Amino acid sequence: MDLKEEIEQRADVFNKELDCFLKRRNPENLYDALRHLPMAGGKRLRPVLSMLACEAVSGNHQQVMPFALAVEIIHNFTLVHDDIMDKSSLRRGMTTVHIEYGEPTAIIAGDLLFAKAFEALGQYPEKIQSFRRLYTHLTQSVVEVCEGQQLDMNFEKRFIVRESEYLAMIKMKTSALFRISCEGGVLIGGADERVQKALREYGTSLGLAFQIRDDYLDMSSDSETLGKDIGNDIRNGKKTIIAVHSLTHAKDDDRKVLTDIFGKATATADDVDKVYNVFDHVGSIKYAKKKAEEYSRLAKKSLDVLEDSASKQVLLALADYAVNREK
Amino acid sequence: MDLKEEIEQRADVFNKELDCFLKRRNPENLYDALRHLPMAGGKRLRPVLSMLACEAVSGNHQQVMPFALAVEIIHNFTLVHDDIMDKSSLRRGMTTVHIEYGEPTAIIAGDLLFAKAFEALGQYPEKIQSFRRLYTHLTQSVVEVCEGQQLDMNFEKRFIVRESEYLAMIKMKTSALFRISCEGGVLIGGADERVQKALREYGTSLGLAFQIRDDYLDMSSDSETLGKDIGNDIRNGKKTIIAVHSLTHAKDDDRKVLTDIFGKATATADDVDKVYNVFDHVGSIKYAKKKAEEYSRLAKKSLDVLEDSASKQVLLALADYAVNREK
Repeated sequence: MDLKEEIEQRADVFNKELDCFLKRRNPENLYDALRHLPMAGGKRLRPVLSMLACEAVSGNHQQVMPFALAVEIIHNFTLVHDDIMDKSSLRRGMTTVHIEYGEPTAIIAGDLLFAKAFEALGQYPEKIQSFRRLYTHLTQSVVEVCEGQQLDMNFEKRFIVRESEYLAMIKMKTSALFRISCEGGVLIGGADERVQKALREYGTSLGLAFQIRDDYLDMSSDSETLGKDIGNDIRNGKKTIIAVHSLTHAKDDDRKVLTDIFGKATATADDVDKVYNVFDHVGSIKYAKKKAEEYSRLAKKSLDVLEDSASKQVLLALADYAVNREK
Repeated sequence: MDLKEEIEQRADVFNKELDCFLKRRNPENLYDALRHLPMAGGKRLRPVLSMLACEAVSGNHQQVMPFALAVEIIHNFTLVHDDIMDKSSLRRGMTTVHIEYGEPTAIIAGDLLFAKAFEALGQYPEKIQSFRRLYTHLTQSVVEVCEGQQLDMNFEKRFIVRESEYLAMIKMKTSALFRISCEGGVLIGGADERVQKALREYGTSLGLAFQIRDDYLDMSSDSETLGKDIGNDIRNGKKTIIAVHSLTHAKDDDRKVLTDIFGKATATADDVDKVYNVFDHVGSIKYAKKKAEEYSRLAKKSLDVLEDSASKQVLLALADYAVNREK
């Protein structure tokens, strides 16, 4: 099985729906801003997960589209607003919305995407039984993403963050949308409570594996590969799982380096290197790699509940991909 | 009938529900930011309209609360984000959310309010028939508010805006939430299509009357009374109905004053006075007053469909209040 092809096939189907759903109308500058990020591509992992989950229990993914649109649009709305908050100027290799259209329009474009997500869900016919469950999933996930985002910011201002706190935060900020994508997918496919719960667990673990692997990749590859800057995370005191692990376990000289430099806005490139060496010496980078693999295994284990199918195989392969990918 | 008392009585009932619904939880700084504006008071016109509309057809307003919460919370979410866009530092006599909690947290607080609005609507039991209609009203109104807000910003960059364009803009930006408050209220109360349509028209006209009276009051009272600054609107080229009227009808010297000064960021206090005098001379200020009264009459006419009741009397009085108020 070619995982890339399996994902792209479904992403293509989804992209046509998305392009059509987010069609331009007046005021055009607002709709251009609205479409800027969603139509710039991306792997569409969340809608593809919904499609795969639905297929795995019902054999097809036709019914999943309004929900998949809603989840992907919500994901994009949070990115548009995150980029304003982080003052990021690049995303998916393109100028961010607020750089391209100005901050006021970017704020409204994000808000409008949010409204459009609920409009997408509203495409389901009145009689669909699972509507209120999907509605609750969607609402609840946005609450979690917002709370997680705030916790992430709050953590930057604290020196010590427990691993359990970090995990609780990324469960909200990152895993929530993965979780509802999978759980919603099987719900729409007609699965019972037991299967819904299993896919909820799959989505949660998969989200954690992806996020922790991101933390790992940020630290183990050069900034060009990922388009991010390790230095800034260190200067901002960003609590990745690697930082959390090092700040908890570093001793003596290692600890002093972190106390002196980690979270210091004026840290030099040399300072950043020193912190990196501590992360490495304490074993935090390896720890992150192992932790991501642990969640990947958990994700795969959750799928035991599903009968074997081509879609199940793709879901399993996705859990491997989460921790094998190099970018 | 004491209109103030009628409104305050209902607002008190509503405020208790709102305070309870928006209860603090972790992360507390986010929930403090979330509660900052909604708990700072305000007239609660939208939820009170929902309550009155529901009473007018069913005799009580118990069922209306989840919807009323949703509408008021959405109103507040748009204000939080508007204040960021406008860089406003004061609202309801208090520091704005982004000044108090910083812009990133204010953006998230607005997003979270939006999610909470849908959470509020989700309090209705599964079996309620009108749920999907209320859901569509809510989603549609946010789309309109976003589009209206963008149009308002776009209009600042144009010299000539037609009155019909201005009216279409405030129908979206301001009237949409008034409209769904009224229409949703009678829908929940069990009214038929005819009554829903009438209350939709009432809400739309009432919203227009309120907005145009605001434009009028901004121009006819000193800045202290309203806490706004006429000068800034003139410097920004803000298209109020007064500006739209003057820019269309001013001739000769009057026109030259507008061409030279209106929308000029560096306009002096003296310049602002000159523009004000043109607005007055062209008859635009009086025109705004009359236009608001016209919509107030239309609003009242829409209520013919309702049987007489105490609540109907309050709705009629509200339409008078919209154009008689001095602040």
